[in-house]
Amino acid sequence: MLYVVGLGPGSKKLMTEEAREVIENTHIIVGYATYVRLIEDMIEGKELVVTGMRGEIERCKKALEIAATGKDVAIISSGDAGIYGMAGLILELAGKMEQHIDIKVIPGVTASIAAAAHLGAPLMNDFCHISLSDLMTPWEVITERVDAAAKADFVICLYNPRSKGRPHHLRKALDIILKYKSPDTIVGIGKDVARPKEVDKVTTIADLDETEINMTSIVIVGNKNTYVEDGRMITPRGYTL
Amino acid sequence: MLYVVGLGPGSKKLMTEEAREVIENTHIIVGYATYVRLIEDMIEGKELVVTGMRGEIERCKKALEIAATGKDVAIISSGDAGIYGMAGLILELAGKMEQHIDIKVIPGVTASIAAAAHLGAPLMNDFCHISLSDLMTPWEVITERVDAAAKADFVICLYNPRSKGRPHHLRKALDIILKYKSPDTIVGIGKDVARPKEVDKVTTIADLDETEINMTSIVIVGNKNTYVEDGRMITPRGYTL
Repeated sequence: MLYVVGLGPGSKKLMTEEAREVIENTHIIVGYATYVRLIEDMIEGKELVVTGMRGEIERCKKALEIAATGKDVAIISSGDAGIYGMAGLILELAGKMEQHIDIKVIPGVTASIAAAAHLGAPLMNDFCHISLSDLMTPWEVITERVDAAAKADFVICLYNPRSKGRPHHLRKALDIILKYKSPDTIVGIGKDVARPKEVDKVTTIADLDETEINMTSIVIVGNKNTYVEDGRMITPRGYTL
Repeated sequence: MLYVVGLGPGSKKLMTEEAREVIENTHIIVGYATYVRLIEDMIEGKELVVTGMRGEIERCKKALEIAATGKDVAIISSGDAGIYGMAGLILELAGKMEQHIDIKVIPGVTASIAAAAHLGAPLMNDFCHISLSDLMTPWEVITERVDAAAKADFVICLYNPRSKGRPHHLRKALDIILKYKSPDTIVGIGKDVARPKEVDKVTTIADLDETEINMTSIVIVGNKNTYVEDGRMITPRGYTL
């Protein structure tokens, strides 16, 4: 069996029991070095296959090759494996193989949900996830989605908001959002959520300092009803109180 | 301390360690009867405050009143407490109180993520969450969001897709989606996910039988690249394989 496991955002406290059991009971673990370090005290004595960043295809192929020999193997992602993680790639590659591989996807807490809980309750109404990485999605498609989401007043979770290679994507996305949303719209930023260096911040589109944001950050842009109370970002569900 | 706890979709295997620890260590548990039943073997000997459906405001007020006396209390939601759950309402009501209450939101696996894992990997590209319940959001706002999400080719997760009181909302939403997406677009349905009666089904917009769908179902409408392989619903991330 090949298990595709979402570890949650970082802390083992946010791992599901099913993910923990699979890691404990599986002898071979495949993963990107940073993710393997998140669980290093759980994997003593196990066989590790560790690959570098952007080694996703190689990593998935190795996991499938091991599973094809009949062994149990777990490939790990941070967050949820099915949200910009390894689950899709594993299933795509498995579909190209002649041999049938048994695959089980184990869900996890994705970064936006953990960041939201630590920021308050920003996702209480309809929301979108948009990745600002154009490595695999054309930038025009991404901007069209940002435009549509802002126009329809979704709460917007921006994944991969800003990196050295893409320093201006967040600014460009916010400029599109400002066509429809006020500069006073509340923005929450969760950086290294559920990890020792975690920083959470609630600000507005106008006051956001994009240089504080990197690839380990999640940016959540509120809807027109989102407000701040006692330092927390709250999107009302719509109850009359 | 008032803990707002997401239990995950049903099975305790999908509960996070932090949620489990809070439930175990907190003597007073507040919740809707159905959610309390999900964890009945964990709450023996505890003080329970159980309210009926649509008793959300009353339930949250009770939890806040108990916390105001200085006692620890946990209010529970299924899935994630911050996604159409109790976290927002608790924070909204706390903001109206004179006394400061310490509140901690414990994230959980929301229904769409669990359903996605069991259906395959449909959320590998940008996606939206839209609730089709118009109890608290005007139907025009909901339909505008469905329109925007379909036009920009998001994967669309529909929460509260269909109930006795709203038998036609799903059909109306699919009719809007069909303005932009093909009838052959893949749809995944997760019903009672991670519970004993779970049924997962992969179909298309054209073949979807809406009478099979109820309030315990999540409907995930794919994007134009979503396909089915070996019975699983896969939205490609965009790797060149």
